[in-house]
Amino acid sequence: MRKIDPEKYAARRREILGAALACFARKGFHRTTTAEICAEAGISAGNLFHYFESKDAIIIAIVEEDRREVAATFEEALRAADLFGELLKLVDRSIAEFADPDYIRIGMEIVAESVRNPRVSELVARNELEKKRALAKLLASARDRGQVVPSVDPAEGADWILLLLDGAFGRAAIDPEFEVAGSAEMLRRAIAGCLRPQT
Amino acid sequence: MRKIDPEKYAARRREILGAALACFARKGFHRTTTAEICAEAGISAGNLFHYFESKDAIIIAIVEEDRREVAATFEEALRAADLFGELLKLVDRSIAEFADPDYIRIGMEIVAESVRNPRVSELVARNELEKKRALAKLLASARDRGQVVPSVDPAEGADWILLLLDGAFGRAAIDPEFEVAGSAEMLRRAIAGCLRPQT
Repeated sequence: MRKIDPEKYAARRREILGAALACFARKGFHRTTTAEICAEAGISAGNLFHYFESKDAIIIAIVEEDRREVAATFEEALRAADLFGELLKLVDRSIAEFADPDYIRIGMEIVAESVRNPRVSELVARNELEKKRALAKLLASARDRGQVVPSVDPAEGADWILLLLDGAFGRAAIDPEFEVAGSAEMLRRAIAGCLRPQT
Repeated sequence: MRKIDPEKYAARRREILGAALACFARKGFHRTTTAEICAEAGISAGNLFHYFESKDAIIIAIVEEDRREVAATFEEALRAADLFGELLKLVDRSIAEFADPDYIRIGMEIVAESVRNPRVSELVARNELEKKRALAKLLASARDRGQVVPSVDPAEGADWILLLLDGAFGRAAIDPEFEVAGSAEMLRRAIAGCLRPQT
């Protein structure tokens, strides 16, 4: 058996994931074949299966990758001095993602998959709960530092922010005329209106 | 050929649609067989096909039915004296729908179907545009009557309200802990904060 360099393995796995994402954005999850993913990634079918045992495993890896990114983003945000500023940055970052049709397409594929595949649904729900807890933690710290209004309930504030972001995602996905970039200012104002302390 | 009473035909068609909705809410669109729909509706398979030529035709009929309901709701709302009050009623009505797990389940099935089926996607997008236009029209009339702030841009206001409702739908669908009913007051306040004239 060949020796496997774990770093090279992880890097190759990320490349394949990127290739799969490009294919899914173009043709959707169900109409993409593993042969197409291999062609995009420049590997053989036999080689693909060293990294992912099935197309389902790839979509699960995408959801897991999203989990890691969200966790890393919040860890970094929590180390910043201005937590309210970090919150607005998170909103801007989401809006920038929603302005990318590939992001919306992949997001909708995952939504569709979660309806049909209980394992995906479970992981998506877990990701959402973790994101909400991280956001509530950020709001609680911001409140303790006087960076948001003292009356804020961190859990309710997290619900409110995630509702606004889900709404922007929904509009971007469903309304062909919706201008995502234009909604950034609206969301910032809605959040600041509830959370920013009077100065 | 038998004579067909158009009213009886329409009533029977609605019954079958209701039976199909019950099946889809239980098992999802893809795992429901036409045999199960027939059993639920108490008709034979041969009889089903007098009403719907396929399971796809049923999901399209559900989307069409939603279109008609939305149009009827807005027509009625526009005849009311207090348009701001009607707007809040529309919000409450949506929230009540989102509190019903069957409604969310069916909604998610339609979202999933729209990802995979271009015809469904097209009809959903058309419904959304019509709903947005109807809502903008309601806001424009409300503004003309001084029932919302004069500075409101009806199209932007409609975007904002639909974003909030999509967000509440998204939370209800994705976050197992989200309390839909509790969000009603939050949404009412968010809408009133932007639209209600100072008195």
